[in-house]
Amino acid sequence: MVIGGIEAGGTKFICAVGDEHGNVTERIQFPTTTPGETMKQVIDFFKKFTLKAIGVGSFGPIDINPASPTYGYITTSPKKKWRNFPMVRTLQEALSVPVGFHTDVNAAALGESAFGAAKGLDSCLYITVGTGIGAGAVISGKLLQGFSHPEMGHLLLRRHPDDPYTGKCPYHADCFEGLASGPAIEERWGKKGSELAGNPEVWELEAYYIAQALMHYILILAPQKIILGGGVMNQKQLFPSIYAKLEKMLNQYLSFPSPLNRYIVPPDLGEDSGIIGSLLLGKQACGAN
Amino acid sequence: MVIGGIEAGGTKFICAVGDEHGNVTERIQFPTTTPGETMKQVIDFFKKFTLKAIGVGSFGPIDINPASPTYGYITTSPKKKWRNFPMVRTLQEALSVPVGFHTDVNAAALGESAFGAAKGLDSCLYITVGTGIGAGAVISGKLLQGFSHPEMGHLLLRRHPDDPYTGKCPYHADCFEGLASGPAIEERWGKKGSELAGNPEVWELEAYYIAQALMHYILILAPQKIILGGGVMNQKQLFPSIYAKLEKMLNQYLSFPSPLNRYIVPPDLGEDSGIIGSLLLGKQACGAN
Repeated sequence: MVIGGIEAGGTKFICAVGDEHGNVTERIQFPTTTPGETMKQVIDFFKKFTLKAIGVGSFGPIDINPASPTYGYITTSPKKKWRNFPMVRTLQEALSVPVGFHTDVNAAALGESAFGAAKGLDSCLYITVGTGIGAGAVISGKLLQGFSHPEMGHLLLRRHPDDPYTGKCPYHADCFEGLASGPAIEERWGKKGSELAGNPEVWELEAYYIAQALMHYILILAPQKIILGGGVMNQKQLFPSIYAKLEKMLNQYLSFPSPLNRYIVPPDLGEDSGIIGSLLLGKQACGAN
Repeated sequence: MVIGGIEAGGTKFICAVGDEHGNVTERIQFPTTTPGETMKQVIDFFKKFTLKAIGVGSFGPIDINPASPTYGYITTSPKKKWRNFPMVRTLQEALSVPVGFHTDVNAAALGESAFGAAKGLDSCLYITVGTGIGAGAVISGKLLQGFSHPEMGHLLLRRHPDDPYTGKCPYHADCFEGLASGPAIEERWGKKGSELAGNPEVWELEAYYIAQALMHYILILAPQKIILGGGVMNQKQLFPSIYAKLEKMLNQYLSFPSPLNRYIVPPDLGEDSGIIGSLLLGKQACGAN
């Protein structure tokens, strides 16, 4: 089955053509600018192929309720030009194929669940810590969804007593994303995270917030595998520090999957979790599971 | 279908006989003492009936992984006499029927989902704030379960700056349960909650912690309905205070089901959510959904 996949990110769009087994045969990427310009590039790319369906893993928030009049829209996004943009309708009208639509992190969770670190398990959590922080979960083999998609990046965490930074989230100031996203790291320390690799205090603090968020996710969801992706997680020294802090916080209350270095892991699909997951969203849009 | 239900609580056991439509025809209750004494009462009661199955909603933590050698056990419970007690095997051996087994809060979530406040919805969250704090969720029509059942009462919340109380949880001191359970209220204020109804500062603080926990649950699960039960929630003045605090914290980031007084509600089944849910666990143990 020839499927199109779109990883619609706040910074860049990746478009791919592939199949339901996660194989990608063609791929292109370009910066996210205006909907008019960016979507023209998307459509020009896909017009060259005969597709069965397209799946989109999108930055958000988005409307994924099929009964809603704004189903398939990017809604209250901080990216103002994309607010109230009808992604699904735009693609359907231009390409005349079924369109699957979920958040970028849900697509990544699906990709890792089918072909990556959580293959063979019926639950997992995929978290990205990068420009923003978000997470998607597969529970009992399905994407977790209630009245809408989760917004797991905005948890209110306990502040570290030695952290005076006020936080970067426009809605909640010092929520998880406001304290621990890439831009928050850069604003707090005055340099990009990638330039701070040798400063252990940066990563101790970062691990403190990530471990706390993981504690919440584990207590609420009990996922069988936790996958930590996104640009900030390229600092691999974060992992052992997160394990140590999480064990201390949970204080042996739960017996969770061990060892921790096989429970909380980087993505198996590297940077392709999202684009491969979007192919699966396309497959689901055809009515296949 | 004649089904037995057990609400196995830390303070009392309720046993009922009823059907898969949530009708209860017989009921008995007695204090939770030792496993030997309490289970004898349970078995003597059910022996009088010809049952198709029994469902148990139990205090925990419990082992609900069918592949585990300790499946059906109460595990690391703070109630020491019940630690490592094989609930499912004990009932199966004495009564020779299939036994369904989940946490007490999961049973209550199931009951409210099928016949109560969340009837007709495919997701809900049931929270009890009482002697302990716990929650169960139905997601896409099924009880939420990953590597185990959730342990949602142990979230680490932000301390209120004017609250000096150290917390009552033996594992995490000042987690949600440690700060906001009935025993925490009693220890902090020197009186039982029921004797503090006229002290608004007690309920302002309580609502502060409950609203924060709800924010986490909503961001992670997005349940279509939230049901707040348990003894502490008999203080009905908590509800409007929780609504106000939650709206302020979320700061219009999410458009969630409104109005809040129909989104976050007391149990429709009153104190019977758990026992009715346990009948449904019995039904599921017969292979019926």
